[in-house]
Amino acid sequence: MDFYTHIGLPESWERRILELGKIYEPIQEDLVKVEAKLRSISEAAFPWLPKRLAYSLKRSGQLAKLLGYSLNSGGKRIRPALVLLSGKFYNYNLDYLLPMAAAVEVTHAATLVHDDAIDNSPIRWGKATIYRVWGEDKAVLLGDYLFAKAGELVATTQNLQVIKLLAQTLQIISTGELSQSFDAFNLKQTRQRYLQRISNKTASLFSLATESGAILSQAPEKSVKALKEYSHNIGIAFQIVDDVLDFIGTEEEIGKPVGSDLAQGTLTLPAMLLLERYPEDNPVKKLFQNQDKQKNIKLAIELVCNSPIVQECYQVASDYCAKARRNLDLLPDNASRQALAGLADYVIARKR
Amino acid sequence: MDFYTHIGLPESWERRILELGKIYEPIQEDLVKVEAKLRSISEAAFPWLPKRLAYSLKRSGQLAKLLGYSLNSGGKRIRPALVLLSGKFYNYNLDYLLPMAAAVEVTHAATLVHDDAIDNSPIRWGKATIYRVWGEDKAVLLGDYLFAKAGELVATTQNLQVIKLLAQTLQIISTGELSQSFDAFNLKQTRQRYLQRISNKTASLFSLATESGAILSQAPEKSVKALKEYSHNIGIAFQIVDDVLDFIGTEEEIGKPVGSDLAQGTLTLPAMLLLERYPEDNPVKKLFQNQDKQKNIKLAIELVCNSPIVQECYQVASDYCAKARRNLDLLPDNASRQALAGLADYVIARKR
Repeated sequence: MDFYTHIGLPESWERRILELGKIYEPIQEDLVKVEAKLRSISEAAFPWLPKRLAYSLKRSGQLAKLLGYSLNSGGKRIRPALVLLSGKFYNYNLDYLLPMAAAVEVTHAATLVHDDAIDNSPIRWGKATIYRVWGEDKAVLLGDYLFAKAGELVATTQNLQVIKLLAQTLQIISTGELSQSFDAFNLKQTRQRYLQRISNKTASLFSLATESGAILSQAPEKSVKALKEYSHNIGIAFQIVDDVLDFIGTEEEIGKPVGSDLAQGTLTLPAMLLLERYPEDNPVKKLFQNQDKQKNIKLAIELVCNSPIVQECYQVASDYCAKARRNLDLLPDNASRQALAGLADYVIARKR
Repeated sequence: MDFYTHIGLPESWERRILELGKIYEPIQEDLVKVEAKLRSISEAAFPWLPKRLAYSLKRSGQLAKLLGYSLNSGGKRIRPALVLLSGKFYNYNLDYLLPMAAAVEVTHAATLVHDDAIDNSPIRWGKATIYRVWGEDKAVLLGDYLFAKAGELVATTQNLQVIKLLAQTLQIISTGELSQSFDAFNLKQTRQRYLQRISNKTASLFSLATESGAILSQAPEKSVKALKEYSHNIGIAFQIVDDVLDFIGTEEEIGKPVGSDLAQGTLTLPAMLLLERYPEDNPVKKLFQNQDKQKNIKLAIELVCNSPIVQECYQVASDYCAKARRNLDLLPDNASRQALAGLADYVIARKR
C-alpha cells in the first residue's frame, strides 16, 4: 500500500506537500547564516577567555569533534526556521533572531544527546549516536556544554524575557522527559497524560521558537500568542507523527530501528489505541510485562500497521495542524505566513 | 598521627580555624533566605504556567522529591556564601544577590548530580546518590532541570553580564569535566594540565560566585577582579584538598569511599607526586594498566599517607590560599573581608 493511502491523507494532499527547501524560501539566506553560526560553535572557541587558557582548552580538539558531530548531523532545522519565519511579520532584526535561532537548535541538539544517552540509543538519523561512539559520560557532558552554549547565545539577544523563556522551556522539557521516564512500562496511562507529556517534551521547544521570534521582532501581544499557539499545535502533531513513524516507517526512513519507543517502554498514541482495541491478549501488554521482547514488538507493529490505528493517529495529528493553520489567520498575510502553513502540512506528510 | 600534624600545618593553625557558622556570621540571616529559596525550588512549582498545566506537572510530586533530595543533601553552601559575602563591600542588594546565590548553588547541585551519574558513584555526603536511588536517566534529567532552574534564577538578577557569565562558566565546567573524562587512566599528564582541569571544573564556579556578587553590588572593576582572583585561588586550593582527602580521609569524614578518584582513573596531585617518586614499581601505574584494582588502590593510599606527599600537596594548596588572602588586601576592611580570609583557612583545614 502506498504511504499516503496508508496514513489516510486525501489524494489531493500529496500535491500540497512542499519540500522543506521550498518552505524555507523566505528565510533561506538567513538559515545559511544559522548554519555558519552552528559551525562556528563547533569550533569550540572561547573568545572571552585569556588567550592562554582558551588555547589550552581548545588544544585537544576533542570538544570540537563532539560538537561538530552533534550539531551537523542531518537535522531538519525546523526550530531555527520557526524563529526566523515568525520574526518576519514585524521588525525583523537578525542581530537578535540569529542567536535565538541558534540557541533553539543548540538546545534541541543538547536534548537529543542526553536522550540518546538515557535510552542507550545506538543510532539516530542513520548515524551512530554520541552515546554510542564516545560513551555515556561524554554524551552527558557534551549535552551540558550545549545547554550552556544555548544560554550564552540567548543572552546575546539582550532580551530578558526570551532569556527567561528559554530557561523555563528547558525546565518543562526535562519535566516531560522525567515523566516519560517515570511512566516507562506503565500500561495505565490516559491519552491526556500522553498529550501533556509530548506537549512538555516536544511542543514546548516549538512554542519557544515562534514565541521568541515574535517577541524579538516586537510583534504585538496577540500575534505573539497566535504564533506560540501555532507552534504548540504543530509540535504536538510533529510528535504524534514521530510516534506513528516509529511503527510504520522503515529504519532507513526514520534513521533508527523501528519500534524503539516500545523497546524503551514508552507508551505512545498508537500503542495506547492498540491497548484499547485489544484489551486482553495484547503484545504491548505482554511486552511491558517483560515477555518475549522482540517477538511482541514485531507483533505490535504488525497489528498497528494492519489496523485503522494509523489513520486514527494521523487524524488526531491533522486536527492539530488544522488548528495551527487557523492560528495563522490573525497574522499579516505574507510569504512567511504561507511558509508556516506549508510547514503544518509538512509535519504531517513527512516520512522522516 | 594527629590530622593537622599529618597535613603539615603549623600548630598555630588549628587555633586559627574557624567554624563555618562563625565565618558565615556577617551573612547568616541572608543564608537562611537562600535556604528558603532552595526549599521553594524543591517544591517544583511552575508559577509562570497556566494553573491547569502547572497542576498536571506537579501532581506526581516525583520531581519535587528528586529536587528536595539533591538540594538538601548536606552541602556546605560555600558558593552562595561567597556570593553574599562579596556583595557586602559596596551596594548590597538582596533582590539581585539572593537569586544569584541560589543560582550558583543550584548549578553546583546540577554538576554533582551529573558527576555521580557519570562516575556511577553510589554515595556522596554519606547518602546514596540520586544516580543510585533513581537511576542514571533520572539523574541526567534532574541535572538538566537544575541547570535550567539556575538559568531562570540568574535571569531574575536582570543583569546581562552575570547571565552571560553563568552560561560561560558552565561551558568551562563541562569542558573541565570532559577533559577529565578524556584523560581517565592516562598516566602522562603534566601538573599544569591538572591545575588547568581543576581550575575549569571547580575554581571557575567559585570565581563566578564572587565575581557575580561583586558585579551585582556595583563594585568597581578592580574589586571585581580581586574578588574573582580570590575565589579562583581558594577554588584551586579547595580541589587540591579534596583530592588529598580522597587519600587520607576516612569514609565517614568525606562521605564517600576513599580512593574514589583512583578507581575512576582520575590522576590527581597526590597520585602524580607518587608517580614522580616511584617511577618504576608504582601501584597507580599498575592500577591504570588495569591490574589488581582494589589491591593497588589500597597500596597507593598507604604509600601516599606514609610519605611527605600529603604535606607537599597541602603546601601547594596553602600557597594558593595565601595568594587568595593577598587578593583581599585591596578591598575595604570589614566583617566580610575577615570572613573571606577565614574561609581561605577553612578550605585548608576542613576534614570534609
